[in-house]
Amino acid sequence: MLKVVKIGGNVVDNPEKLDAFLRDFALLDGPKILVHGGGKIATSIGRALGIEARMIEGRRVTDAETLKVVTMVYAGLVNKTIVDKLRTAGCRPFGLCGADGGLILSRRRSPEPVDYGFVGDPLPDRFGLDAARMLIDAGYTPVVAPITADAEGEGLLNTNADTVAQTVAVGMSAVYETELVYCFEKRGVLLDVNDDDSVIAEITPDRFAELRTRGIVADGMLPKLENAFRAIDSGVRSVAICSADRIASPGYGGTTLRK
Amino acid sequence: MLKVVKIGGNVVDNPEKLDAFLRDFALLDGPKILVHGGGKIATSIGRALGIEARMIEGRRVTDAETLKVVTMVYAGLVNKTIVDKLRTAGCRPFGLCGADGGLILSRRRSPEPVDYGFVGDPLPDRFGLDAARMLIDAGYTPVVAPITADAEGEGLLNTNADTVAQTVAVGMSAVYETELVYCFEKRGVLLDVNDDDSVIAEITPDRFAELRTRGIVADGMLPKLENAFRAIDSGVRSVAICSADRIASPGYGGTTLRK
Repeated sequence: MLKVVKIGGNVVDNPEKLDAFLRDFALLDGPKILVHGGGKIATSIGRALGIEARMIEGRRVTDAETLKVVTMVYAGLVNKTIVDKLRTAGCRPFGLCGADGGLILSRRRSPEPVDYGFVGDPLPDRFGLDAARMLIDAGYTPVVAPITADAEGEGLLNTNADTVAQTVAVGMSAVYETELVYCFEKRGVLLDVNDDDSVIAEITPDRFAELRTRGIVADGMLPKLENAFRAIDSGVRSVAICSADRIASPGYGGTTLRK
Repeated sequence: MLKVVKIGGNVVDNPEKLDAFLRDFALLDGPKILVHGGGKIATSIGRALGIEARMIEGRRVTDAETLKVVTMVYAGLVNKTIVDKLRTAGCRPFGLCGADGGLILSRRRSPEPVDYGFVGDPLPDRFGLDAARMLIDAGYTPVVAPITADAEGEGLLNTNADTVAQTVAVGMSAVYETELVYCFEKRGVLLDVNDDDSVIAEITPDRFAELRTRGIVADGMLPKLENAFRAIDSGVRSVAICSADRIASPGYGGTTLRK
């Protein structure tokens, strides 16, 4: 089973959490791909350079200067730091962004109704399966930064890391049995949002419908799970949602979504 | 013949020169690898972040903060910008630094007599031939940033781009007939340093000895040529020194060194 694991900014921003996660990740059996977010480093470096992060509804607006910053930070500093740590931890990592080997080509998001600037949405049909297969089949662990290449040749584009992970997992599922693992702040989908131990171990489409009706899944979790089931409908075997510190645990001590 | 081409900061710093060079490079026949320097972008971004570049005898001193800056700029901004432009120009580029796939492992330079900080000298015996062959044999063009990985696992290290190019060329020459091409400010080795048209087309070891005795090769050019002949002694077929705007010309309109 190929694992596509996504870690978010909360792990990337915390050197101790990141080191612990990478040590566990490096030891995971079987072929694997890591997709990482960027975290607050880009914001703080941007600020030091005199560029204020502009957010609309929690999403960063990427102007030309911000695109340079996220390219530097995500595809440079964060990506290569992770690659070097994984190498030391006994993995064979190979860092890349969507432009490398044509891994992930995207379309610049329409400026209507909201102009997010140089932001791209991946084109699943253009997934660079050849490049990813080459690395996996040679025993490397691809480490993917969320910067993609405009399919029309208009330059690099900032891309949501969750979407990058999903695109990679769906793309790889054409050839490999693929599991997608989202590491986030909580241990999984909780039956009681105030009780971290109330993790729901498994969610099927029927259970999802029930949880939604009962209002247990709502707000930010709803689109996450909808996207996860969309990935499953597109060929991914299962999607796990867990905490980064449980990546080495059976079932990741989290929630697994499957058909 | 595999071409390993190195472009320096003077090309990287000039968007028009860089675009013109990349268009020519993309169209070069046969397998090829591009190694790039960093240029003044790192210095100006470092300065904007409040880090003054400290130089000793023309070499940058890399403290911990500067290492972050060069990793961001060389392996992030410059590398991915070049990759994206080459992709648009019809190439199949794959950007990496020395840490990726274990391409170039290095040893941190001794702090005696001069402490250059986080600077590494490549270990030729540890060249990641597997990674480079995999990319070349799959039809990709590796684009290499001059950041390497400490072989002892002590982190990333800043590395001289000329030395990276030489390490790549010597390493590849174990398997491929390899030509190393240095693009620099002049058209080649000049018989008369004030006459840009006085390019010496070919230099053999005998001719080199003669040019040295006559004082025609001196100063900065002397170590460059000594390194070039060392690469040839280590298996590289020939080394060309030329201007970036002649990369598409026969013989690169420059100087070729061969046995």
